[in-house]
Amino acid sequence: MITGKYARRMASIRGSDIRELLKLTENRDVISMGGGLPAPELFPVEELRGAADRLLTRSGRIALQYSSTEGYAPLRGRIAERMNLRWGTHLGGDQILMTTGSQQGLDLIGKLFLDEGDAVICESPTYIGAITAWNVFCPEWVEVQTDDEGMRIEHLEERLDARPDAKLIYIVPNFQNPSGRTWSIERRWRLMELAVRRGIPVVEDNPYGEVRFEGEHLPALMSMDEKGLVVGLGTYSKVFAPGLRLGWVAAEPGTLGKLTLLKQGADLHTGTFDQMLAFEYLEKADLDERIGQIIETYRARRDAMIRALEREMPAEVRFTRPAGGLFLWVELPAGIDARLLLRRCLDEGVAFVPGSGFFPNGGHENTMRLNFSNASPERIEEGIRRLARALGELTKGSGAIDAAVAQADPSPGR
Amino acid sequence: MITGKYARRMASIRGSDIRELLKLTENRDVISMGGGLPAPELFPVEELRGAADRLLTRSGRIALQYSSTEGYAPLRGRIAERMNLRWGTHLGGDQILMTTGSQQGLDLIGKLFLDEGDAVICESPTYIGAITAWNVFCPEWVEVQTDDEGMRIEHLEERLDARPDAKLIYIVPNFQNPSGRTWSIERRWRLMELAVRRGIPVVEDNPYGEVRFEGEHLPALMSMDEKGLVVGLGTYSKVFAPGLRLGWVAAEPGTLGKLTLLKQGADLHTGTFDQMLAFEYLEKADLDERIGQIIETYRARRDAMIRALEREMPAEVRFTRPAGGLFLWVELPAGIDARLLLRRCLDEGVAFVPGSGFFPNGGHENTMRLNFSNASPERIEEGIRRLARALGELTKGSGAIDAAVAQADPSPGR
Repeated sequence: MITGKYARRMASIRGSDIRELLKLTENRDVISMGGGLPAPELFPVEELRGAADRLLTRSGRIALQYSSTEGYAPLRGRIAERMNLRWGTHLGGDQILMTTGSQQGLDLIGKLFLDEGDAVICESPTYIGAITAWNVFCPEWVEVQTDDEGMRIEHLEERLDARPDAKLIYIVPNFQNPSGRTWSIERRWRLMELAVRRGIPVVEDNPYGEVRFEGEHLPALMSMDEKGLVVGLGTYSKVFAPGLRLGWVAAEPGTLGKLTLLKQGADLHTGTFDQMLAFEYLEKADLDERIGQIIETYRARRDAMIRALEREMPAEVRFTRPAGGLFLWVELPAGIDARLLLRRCLDEGVAFVPGSGFFPNGGHENTMRLNFSNASPERIEEGIRRLARALGELTKGSGAIDAAVAQADPSPGR
Repeated sequence: MITGKYARRMASIRGSDIRELLKLTENRDVISMGGGLPAPELFPVEELRGAADRLLTRSGRIALQYSSTEGYAPLRGRIAERMNLRWGTHLGGDQILMTTGSQQGLDLIGKLFLDEGDAVICESPTYIGAITAWNVFCPEWVEVQTDDEGMRIEHLEERLDARPDAKLIYIVPNFQNPSGRTWSIERRWRLMELAVRRGIPVVEDNPYGEVRFEGEHLPALMSMDEKGLVVGLGTYSKVFAPGLRLGWVAAEPGTLGKLTLLKQGADLHTGTFDQMLAFEYLEKADLDERIGQIIETYRARRDAMIRALEREMPAEVRFTRPAGGLFLWVELPAGIDARLLLRRCLDEGVAFVPGSGFFPNGGHENTMRLNFSNASPERIEEGIRRLARALGELTKGSGAIDAAVAQADPSPGR
């Protein structure tokens, strides 16, 4: 009876069968390369215990009370400083809006910009959480081909010519989820130039940027933006503790003010206690040292995964070699359905996320995302062995691999 | 440049000048009856310090990690039990979705039900946070007259006849914000009967129900609902600690599943740490004893406010006498603008919220909401004295009071 009352937008909101499938693995001994969980053994549990104690002793009544929609001012100041140092921006704390994870930033941005049918330009593949957040506003997703340096700019121009009214360009420039790829500095400049020329806002989602295993940090698009077109998203989830749900949006004051109004309607404000706890922790902690530990640990896990893939997988299987972050991306030979492979893998005790969900317009069934942050190198090696075994069984006699070999071009991913 | 890209809905999203005005008072010695802040001196700071310590010692890695969109299962079970005990519902924990404050429940419900132009039936006045949350979806607000027992059912029927396609009926049945009024049991039944007959979902928002100063608790509409039409909202903000941002939605499984999908896009999940901390606290704490303290404290404050209003205010000023909650409602004689009064009051060092913002279609400039939970009886008395003084000055020579006296009917509110 109540179903008939749902809004039209609900027609495009569907549960993910993959998510349900992966849920089933939660309590079983499955090597999961499926989620995007940070390594919990690196959480600063002891330091937070101390910080919680100090905070509640000194400022308990404030920490447990309602607070401002914008967020805890000292924390916002600290975030702006860090962004300026790391990404070359010139932000003040008043240009930061604290959000309940950076996922909420996506929701608020969708609300601010997207009417039904509006075009959103995105990388292909793109972050699945952005698809989930924005599908509520019924946009049209316009995917742009990507390579190891980011979007192919000629293709982006084509897309923009076809949709000059596009509302947003959405990118994850560093160690993208799901592909693990990083935009080159040249592409960043070219995108920014295009965005300015055409007056299109850019959403720069940067949850993984701090987790760089090698090479130099590259400046944020926001640092190249003189027109206030870039809306930046950040989070403590990957360098600190996702269970606190602390993300932020950075934007020019007008846009930030609108986002703040929208946040007020969405959840009043992000947890006071969580924000003050993070600040208290950061006052004493050496964040660089912490991130250093994360980098060292994840780098070893990425290396283990790449070595195992090289050893275990047939040569026709291509994959990226991310310079940071939590994920790498695998392309199986055309004709192999990663969803079928997943079902077989679950029987083998290993899980991953099939890639098609990262393409808002579907297709690409032969792709998959592997997470390397949440298991030891040994578990990862065992996981890849199981994956390779399952793939072998799936393709046995199907000829898919043989066919792929026959037409394979040299794989840039290996 | 970016402004031209905003969604159409943003035309109806405006900042509140009142909010900005009240912000200015934050660091001044103003007696605030403006906000809706619980009394921080009653927060269980010490107990939470112990709970945080135990939680981080025992389960730190889990408490700081991502967790399920639905929420922490043991906490959801506890909430369902409490609702069943207190409000006569028959819920299992799997019918509870944890939200980032109950404000987020409103956002999710708006997303689930509201298309542009859809009718929302609400009390007149209604909770301002619902207006803020739902205006994003551009509904048409249909206000129903209320008296001391709830909505006037004949008026509700009229409104429903005019808008039989209404999507939602939204009510706050206990100690409503802003009016302080409580629905009688008869009106609850009659509303439910109407909702069932016409197949219209009911949103029952119950943040204050536990804070009852006198009389018996009344059953929730949800307990009278055999069709799964009622979506219930609850929160720990008023009985525990708003800074943790813990609210919930209760609904029949189909609707709850859709809300869960929407929440996933909105912020993935509510803070793991906050949820587990609340559970850890509740395991050891006597919630009834805590609520008992809140009730005793707020009752004394309400009494002080009512006594002061009786003593200080001219007889033409009418006000409600809430049996619980945090607010009472004042009607000034017609022709007096509470916004003008507020400006004068800020000079006198006292603040409140003008009432017109609680009417989604405007008007009622002669009304105001007073909060009594966040100041001592002495401060409240002094606040009302200042308020009365400012009112006297505002009306001096304007004749508004005199005119009101001439045409006043006996005030049921006093």
